[in-house]
Order: sequence, then C-alpha cells, then structure tokens
Amino acid sequence: MNQTLLNQLRHTNPIVANISNHVTVDQVANVQNVIGASPIMSSAPEEAADIVAIAQAITVNIGTLAQPQIDQMVTLLQAAYQMHKPVVLDPVAVGSLTYRQGVIDQLLTLGTPDIIRGNAGEIAYFAGIDWQANGIDAGSGQADIVDLAQQAARKLNTTILLTGPTDVVTDGTRVTQIFNGTPLFQTHVGSGDMLTGVCGAFVGMLPDDPYQAAVAAATTFAVTGQLVAEAMPQPLPGSFYPQLLDRLFTVTTEEISQKAQLKESN
Amino acid sequence: MNQTLLNQLRHTNPIVANISNHVTVDQVANVQNVIGASPIMSSAPEEAADIVAIAQAITVNIGTLAQPQIDQMVTLLQAAYQMHKPVVLDPVAVGSLTYRQGVIDQLLTLGTPDIIRGNAGEIAYFAGIDWQANGIDAGSGQADIVDLAQQAARKLNTTILLTGPTDVVTDGTRVTQIFNGTPLFQTHVGSGDMLTGVCGAFVGMLPDDPYQAAVAAATTFAVTGQLVAEAMPQPLPGSFYPQLLDRLFTVTTEEISQKAQLKESN
Amino acid sequence: MNQTLLNQLRHTNPIVANISNHVTVDQVANVQNVIGASPIMSSAPEEAADIVAIAQAITVNIGTLAQPQIDQMVTLLQAAYQMHKPVVLDPVAVGSLTYRQGVIDQLLTLGTPDIIRGNAGEIAYFAGIDWQANGIDAGSGQADIVDLAQQAARKLNTTILLTGPTDVVTDGTRVTQIFNGTPLFQTHVGSGDMLTGVCGAFVGMLPDDPYQAAVAAATTFAVTGQLVAEAMPQPLPGSFYPQLLDRLFTVTTEEISQKAQLKESN
Repeated sequence: MNQTLLNQLRHTNPIVANISNHVTVDQVANVQNVIGASPIMSSAPEEAADIVAIAQAITVNIGTLAQPQIDQMVTLLQAAYQMHKPVVLDPVAVGSLTYRQGVIDQLLTLGTPDIIRGNAGEIAYFAGIDWQANGIDAGSGQADIVDLAQQAARKLNTTILLTGPTDVVTDGTRVTQIFNGTPLFQTHVGSGDMLTGVCGAFVGMLPDDPYQAAVAAATTFAVTGQLVAEAMPQPLPGSFYPQLLDRLFTVTTEEISQKAQLKESN
Repeated sequence: MNQTLLNQLRHTNPIVANISNHVTVDQVANVQNVIGASPIMSSAPEEAADIVAIAQAITVNIGTLAQPQIDQMVTLLQAAYQMHKPVVLDPVAVGSLTYRQGVIDQLLTLGTPDIIRGNAGEIAYFAGIDWQANGIDAGSGQADIVDLAQQAARKLNTTILLTGPTDVVTDGTRVTQIFNGTPLFQTHVGSGDMLTGVCGAFVGMLPDDPYQAAVAAATTFAVTGQLVAEAMPQPLPGSFYPQLLDRLFTVTTEEISQKAQLKESN
Repeated sequence: MNQTLLNQLRHTNPIVANISNHVTVDQVANVQNVIGASPIMSSAPEEAADIVAIAQAITVNIGTLAQPQIDQMVTLLQAAYQMHKPVVLDPVAVGSLTYRQGVIDQLLTLGTPDIIRGNAGEIAYFAGIDWQANGIDAGSGQADIVDLAQQAARKLNTTILLTGPTDVVTDGTRVTQIFNGTPLFQTHVGSGDMLTGVCGAFVGMLPDDPYQAAVAAATTFAVTGQLVAEAMPQPLPGSFYPQLLDRLFTVTTEEISQKAQLKESN
C-alpha cells in the first residue's frame, strides 16, 4: 500500500466534485473534508464543466436517482471523461433494481469509471454473475468474491473495490484483499458511500493508478473503522460515525501500516 | 405491548421503502438500520413498483414537498395499496399549511395509510378539530389529545399515533397512552420523522395489526430516548441523536418492559 | 453585543424558513432548533407565501442549486421582501463559479438581503475585488478582510458577515471584528451554513438591526465553538458537531460575554 498518499492528501487538499445520493451526502462531504480533501456538490448542469475543471476527481452515487440528477450525472461525466479527471462510481442497489441497471448501462456508454465501489450484490451485476441481492444490502450468492471482482474488473477494464467483511480491490490482474474492518460499518447507513468519497479523494492524488488509490482508500477506511470499534466498550452504531470522522482526522500512516492486514496477489 | 416484535425485527431485517423529507432522510435510514430493518430510499417513479415489491412496508413523509416528489409518492402509494403493503404516513406541518392539506387529501384518495404519525397540530387536521399549529411544531389547542386521536382514527378508519409529551396510539376503539419519553425529543429535529421510520419497520413485521405495531414502535422509541436522557449528566440535544441510535441498537426487550409506562383502554 | 438577544430567542421560538442546500440542511434545522428557533424547510412554490407569512426570518443558501430550487428561492424572496421579513443570504462558492454569480445577480434584483454571510472568497465577489477562491473554500487574496467586507456592504447597502479565522461584521460604517473561534469550524462541512441559520434566528428577533443581529449570532457561534474545542483533549472534527449543538443549547449569555473578544470601530 502506498503509505505517502494520505499525507499527500492532507497537504494538497484536492477538490472532489460529488453527485451523491441525498441520504448520505452530508457524510460524504464531511468524510472527504476530515481526510484532507475539499468536497463540492452540485445539482446544476450549467456549472458541471466549471466544477469538473477545478476538481481533481469526480464521484457519482446512484442511491437516490431522479431524472434531473441523471441528466446532471451525464453532463458531469461527459466533462470528466473529456478532461481526463478520474471518476469513481457507486452503483447503489444495481443488483436488485432493473431501473438502476438501465441507468448504469447508460452512464457506462459515456466512458469507463476509474473505480467502481460496491458490495457483492452490486459488483455481481457488472460480472454478469447470478447473485441474490437484497435492496441496498449485499445479499448472498455462491461465487467467490475475489473471482467476482476480477471478472467485473476484466469485463469493464476498470478497478473494482468490492466491500464487505473482507474488501477486495482488483484491476483484473492485481488483487489486494483487505481483512480489516468492523461489523459497525454495516450498522451505519453511509459507510459504503463514505468509502466511495474517500476513493475520490485518494484517486485525485493518484489519477494514473486507480488500483493503488483504491487500495490506499479502502485500507485507510477499514483500519480506521477497526481502531474506532476496538476502542469502544461495546458496539455503538450511532457514536461510530462521529468517532470515525475523528479518527480519520487523527490517524497516522504508521498506525495504518501496523494494523493493516493485506494479502496481495496477481 | 408485543414484546417479541423487536427481536423478530432484529432477526428478519425487513426492507422498508421510504419517501422522506430531505432534512432528516439520513436519520430515518440510520434509525431503521440500527433497529434491524433495511431502509431503501428512492426518487424515481420508474422503480417504484420494483421497490414496493421487495419492501415489507412503506413510509411517506411530506416534510419537504416538491411536485416530482408528490408524483413519486402517488406512484409508490398506488403500488403499495395494490400489493397490500402496509403504509405509514407522516403529515409534517399539515396543520398550518393549506398547500400540504391539499396534497394529503390527494394522497388519501389513493387509499388509507395503516398508520398516521403526527403531533397534535397535525392530527387535529384529520379530526377536523380547530387547533393552533405552529409551523412544524404542535402548537396548542383545547381538545383532549386522546379524543383528538380517536376522532381522527375513526374518521379515516386507521391507526393514529399522536406524539408529544404523552404519545397516544388508537385505532378508534383501542387506545394506548405512552407516558415515557424525554424533552430531548423536542430539542432534536428529526425525532418525529425517525419514529415514523421505526413504525415502518415494526408494521413490516406485523402488517395485520398496525395498532400493535404502532404501540410497540412508539414504546420502544420513547423508552429508549428516556434511557438515553436519564444517563446524561444534563440534557445534551446534539449528543442525544448518536446516543439514541446507540441505545436503540443495544436496548433489550426486558429493559423496555421494565421501563414502559402504558395505559391501555378501549 | 446585544446580550439579551439569545435569551429572547430561547423564549420566543421564532419560526425561520430556510432554503438550504441538501448537504447540510439537517444541520441548519438542528442548529436553529437548539438555539431556540423553530426551523421550517420547504421546496414547494405553492406554499412559499404561507411559509413566509408565519416566519420571522428567511435564509437562502445556494450550495446545491438546481432550477426548481432557484424558482423556489425567487418565489420565497419575493414574498419575503413584500412582507418585510428579514432575509439572510449564503452565496456558497459564488467566488469560484460563474453560474452561481448569475443566480446571485438574479436574486439581488428582487431586493437586498439584510445579511450576507460568506467567506472571503465569496464576499470578494460582492466587493468586486479580485480574489482566488477555491471551490467552497475561501482561497487567498491580497485585500484586507475588513476593507473587503466594508466595500461589499457599501456596494449592496447591506450587512456583511465575513467569516474566517477572524469574523468581520459590517454595515459599511460600523465594524465588529470577532477574534473567537476554533480551526475545528474549518474541519466540519456545514459550519458556515449553520452560522447562516443562526443569523436567521437572531435577525428574526431584531429585524430592524441586522448588523447587531449578525454580531450577536457570529459571537455566540464563534465563542461556543471555541468553548467546545477548549474542552477537547485534541481536535476531533466528528465529535465537534454534536458537541457544538450541545453547547449552543447550554451556553449562557454570561459565558459568551466573558469569552468574547470583539473589536468595534466605525
């Protein structure tokens, strides 16, 4: 894992432009801010090009779609691909809702995101593998999650970050499994959306290597969540969120290295 | 009060589909999640039927109406009534804004919600009783709140959950008053919206008895809030929200039974 | 600084109507609530006049513009100016995005807000001074911030609240500098939006003297933030927000007077 990326982020404060769902948009903005980035959200197509121009990275989350927001995604993504800004896509619930599959397919015609972050049920859609997704939850299936992520990465020629009890990052060839984390991530709505936001911040620092950016983002996030959980007398899902922000602000690269349990292969 | 419902909820993880206002949508999602449900939000009419199909219950909150959202409510409610999924309605500020009265009247033509959750000023609208509502606040009036709730329940043939210092649940015949709670609920914007979300989770477990679902939801919520407040050295409205989520996750049915102060009549 | 305003606010509970951005709308509602006001949000032009009629003040924040929201701002502001309700404007990122400059110019044709709250990069736009704004951040420039605020106030004939490490309030003639605060405000996305909301609450109490209302609002907010930060073992940006709400609820006018470091001039 790239140890310097977090420090670089904290010193550079890259602007990340986000189209977030309206449930967790506050969390996405705040997690990017404490990690060192400068978030900006926008709903107006009229300013999409200007926002992409000042941004180092773009994140798009389809959690609460409506037609004007889809139009805005199209405008923003067109500008991002044209200006070669890295794009992170969060395909919320694409595994269980056919409407969202159509929207994702439409967005993919504009270009290929540099990172797609989703749970197993969502990534299975891209891999074309049968999986029982459950609303916004991962659901269950028979496939090996490493294989699942690799198939999706190869099909789309992108970096996949599949999150769950174990996170998997792969560009189709290289694979990193991250064994850190805490069940508290599942008790908090917004954990995945925040990690997508963190990926945006990291890939803004490393636009030419989305795979390493995703590994660094996911490791930082998973280790920090684990540190928070281990410091709690019992699992407290409401206190988890503010304490996660606290710890993402104070965590050192040394703490992350010491705690990280990664398995790399290719 | 049905003691097993909370445990059932924690083991079953029903999907609850919500159209929330954009002020407290994060809170609604998170409270449903910590209580054991799996929340999903949607703004796209195109996926309304699919979402209702996978959901065990529906909640609709009119706190920040706009025409596209009303269209979405209509689509979602039509699907919900057709598929016999239980519906919880939160008529925010209907007591003081005539525009919202028109919207509510329109929504009521589609079918009757299984539970309506509101403060006295909002429930008075359904009862047709004169009441001085004050924006989103309850305001004040002369009527007895039990009578108010009963009249509304009878007029609409539904279950009313009237919240305030004392909560009243009634289906027009049966009445439960819940004397638990804390003034901290009033210091936090989102308490009512969260309770509406909790009702959605409980009625998803007990679709054939919305009255008992509402009693269980309101008792669980009020008792847990009281437990949080009693553990505080002084009333702290900002810490109340994360601690309420913490406690809703850890509270046991035994703690709720011991603390509950209910008065049932019919 | 007007010492009685906070107590008055806590006893009167004025209704403040807000068009907020969807990132921090929950925070704006909650900060107004803990400070003693009764917030109401609305997205429907149909109820704009009714909402303005029951409100003591209006706040408008352009953080996440979309055309329907702009239409709503126009409707609400027209009603507010017609009914002589005080208006607070938060011109998020107007310094760096030309589209937002066009929207602000359009809103200014409807009337002059009573208070404009922004960072240096945003206020520079109104002063017509060259400044390197950075997305939603203040950026940097050569101008003296007191001069910057005064020029903006004189050009628009309004009260400017320029926030940063030092806050400046001016109506073009009178100037108050507020040296309180904490760097934690910058680590939390929503601090500025919340202060705009607090200004709405205070100016609802003192509609005839927006300058004094802004001084009281900014001093209360900055001192309280500082009290929170000083009570922390280390800067914790995630815990800062709930604790800021806690302290805004418990802080006394005596504590504020003792801690306030103001410099008044004219």
